[in-house]
Amino acid sequence: MTNTPVVSLVEYENAPAQVRAVFDDIMVTRGSDWVNNFWKVLAHDPVLLLRTWESVKEVMAPGALDPLTKEMIYIAVSATNGCEYCTYSHTAGARAKGMTDAQLMEVMAVAGMANETNRLANGLRPPVDVQFTDG
Amino acid sequence: MTNTPVVSLVEYENAPAQVRAVFDDIMVTRGSDWVNNFWKVLAHDPVLLLRTWESVKEVMAPGALDPLTKEMIYIAVSATNGCEYCTYSHTAGARAKGMTDAQLMEVMAVAGMANETNRLANGLRPPVDVQFTDG
Amino acid sequence: MTNTPVVSLVEYENAPAQVRAVFDDIMVTRGSDWVNNFWKVLAHDPVLLLRTWESVKEVMAPGALDPLTKEMIYIAVSATNGCEYCTYSHTAGARAKGMTDAQLMEVMAVAGMANETNRLANGLRPPVDVQFTDG
Amino acid sequence: MTNTPVVSLVEYENAPAQVRAVFDDIMVTRGSDWVNNFWKVLAHDPVLLLRTWESVKEVMAPGALDPLTKEMIYIAVSATNGCEYCTYSHTAGARAKGMTDAQLMEVMAVAGMANETNRLANGLRPPVDVQFTDG
Amino acid sequence: MTNTPVVSLVEYENAPAQVRAVFDDIMVTRGSDWVNNFWKVLAHDPVLLLRTWESVKEVMAPGALDPLTKEMIYIAVSATNGCEYCTYSHTAGARAKGMTDAQLMEVMAVAGMANETNRLANGLRPPVDVQFTDG
Amino acid sequence: MTNTPVVSLVEYENAPAQVRAVFDDIMVTRGSDWVNNFWKVLAHDPVLLLRTWESVKEVMAPGALDPLTKEMIYIAVSATNGCEYCTYSHTAGARAKGMTDAQLMEVMAVAGMANETNRLANGLRPPVDVQFTDG
Repeated sequence: MTNTPVVSLVEYENAPAQVRAVFDDIMVTRGSDWVNNFWKVLAHDPVLLLRTWESVKEVMAPGALDPLTKEMIYIAVSATNGCEYCTYSHTAGARAKGMTDAQLMEVMAVAGMANETNRLANGLRPPVDVQFTDG
Repeated sequence: MTNTPVVSLVEYENAPAQVRAVFDDIMVTRGSDWVNNFWKVLAHDPVLLLRTWESVKEVMAPGALDPLTKEMIYIAVSATNGCEYCTYSHTAGARAKGMTDAQLMEVMAVAGMANETNRLANGLRPPVDVQFTDG
Repeated sequence: MTNTPVVSLVEYENAPAQVRAVFDDIMVTRGSDWVNNFWKVLAHDPVLLLRTWESVKEVMAPGALDPLTKEMIYIAVSATNGCEYCTYSHTAGARAKGMTDAQLMEVMAVAGMANETNRLANGLRPPVDVQFTDG
Repeated sequence: MTNTPVVSLVEYENAPAQVRAVFDDIMVTRGSDWVNNFWKVLAHDPVLLLRTWESVKEVMAPGALDPLTKEMIYIAVSATNGCEYCTYSHTAGARAKGMTDAQLMEVMAVAGMANETNRLANGLRPPVDVQFTDG
Repeated sequence: MTNTPVVSLVEYENAPAQVRAVFDDIMVTRGSDWVNNFWKVLAHDPVLLLRTWESVKEVMAPGALDPLTKEMIYIAVSATNGCEYCTYSHTAGARAKGMTDAQLMEVMAVAGMANETNRLANGLRPPVDVQFTDG
Repeated sequence: MTNTPVVSLVEYENAPAQVRAVFDDIMVTRGSDWVNNFWKVLAHDPVLLLRTWESVKEVMAPGALDPLTKEMIYIAVSATNGCEYCTYSHTAGARAKGMTDAQLMEVMAVAGMANETNRLANGLRPPVDVQFTDG
């Protein structure tokens, strides 16, 4: 409804050195020449900015799961929580990593179904089957 | 806190033919000899039972995403929504499809981080960057 | 996982007069001889107890909607939020007002479907059609 | 903040036969000459489109609950989840089925109160009363 | 996406006496000469308007917690729920009570971290330690 | 419903050095001789364990807000999300920092009211007042 953020966007030009260092690392890590608005609002708290960026970088790096799978999980959670900004930013991120529209639609289908059955279970309260908690 | 479901568990022995047909299909599809409690509470409404099972079967089948990736998205959504039953049932389902503990922990790490940044964005309201909505 | 509440249950015998008056009104209004645990934990703050009870009584009274419809909306919201206590208490309340199991299952079916399509919309972000906002 | 959907709107003119068949059924079922944007984004996955439409049609049909009651439950869940699109579309749907503003305001009042007491219970954790789980 | 509310804004000029009395009390209590849009939509149900205003006034008054602490809790909850309107209105309210940007950023940091660890706990399900429930 | 965690508890005795170092720091930082179960499940991923602990330690340290205020915000978010474990652990944490029952009840009252008005706003969609976004 409004396009005015709750705190102003901290632009590179006016950012303190601590913030510029994070912005630089974001651009280098992504091979990009711009920083998206999410980081510009976090920059009001350089400690929060740094911790969040370092955490996201660590969590989204290749590991037991590949980065695209991680982005798709991020999309599913963001849609579940109704975060508009995150839905756009992580869908763009996943597409940059090769996600097709067919894959996006399946992410949505699974997220939608999970949200449905989560409530059927939460409303009818079946006991957890012992088979699910056996060693 | 309680182990009593909101509606009783419909057991195979006492189930009408319509319900037994779904229970049979669940067991055949999974190569299993038992039906978990989620379906036994849904069985109070055979139409709901059938639709939910057919939908889950369709959504979770191999497609643009493989079944294990889908189970991991399901887990991330279920943890986000705080659905205890679904967390246990889909973690068991993912393990049966080969998910390692290392993969589970990364699913949690991504889901946790997404839940955190979703709220940073929802609270500070950065405008969606035009780069994310360009064709 | 635990049955110990976060604050102790305030029992009628040990309750101050202000709390007893609310407990009495709960029992008289419901034609019941006991007070459920929700009110016993709220009783640690008599002002919160009184306001919550008066508000619930006012909201759930017959109006443009009948009390059973209101209880079913309450169940759908409680399942959506994953509130175990509220799911049991309001399902019991709705049954006391005549809700059948067939009706309960349809409440769940609608709540489940709404939770699913809510996420499909939140993830794919269709613009709100002008037909929906026309006067 | 943005009016650009995450995936483009599939218009009838450019839709494959499979999608047109669903769009036609939506218009016939509703006695309407247009299809709202929700279905146009789902149309990127014709299988998802068909299943979601068939499910919604089945769930929202008259049964143990009448269609208006179902729409009002849908509104309460959509407001709880913060789904902007669904709030507008289902409020319009309910009004088309005769919902008055007085009824809408009571739906909101009940949904609001449920969201409040859900958190009071989730934060203070009263044990579920045995009276609520007795047969 | 749209700026049209679901119900029209009830302006003071056209409001019935019951509504004007609440609007007057809002302005007097706040030492303000205008009423924000939240109350103008609630005004379609004067009973809901009055109860909500009286409740908010009572809850947000100085007590065991000071009003600024209460506003910051309100912001954290609103960000968690993704309520755009409430995020803007309560951030403005907290700033009017003296909240600095540094405090706002810490509210966000705590809310973000809580949302993350809530899901780690909901997904991995550690048992509640007995030390937390001891008397 | 079940007391079995999704992954086993990693006990100090069997923990690798990397995990023991974090457990030691938790106990030293808290002046405590035990580690709660949340950290024992995270220990399956030492990198996640370390990052989460370092982040929580940083976020909850005294800053623009005092530690007790932060714990109370944590409780409000945890109740909003329905996280049982976090509700117990952070209520215990806040009490250890001096939170009284009167303060806890007010945290709940504010969280409950916020959850209510969040949905009234999300369902009725008042436009954000320009007064809230003015510089």
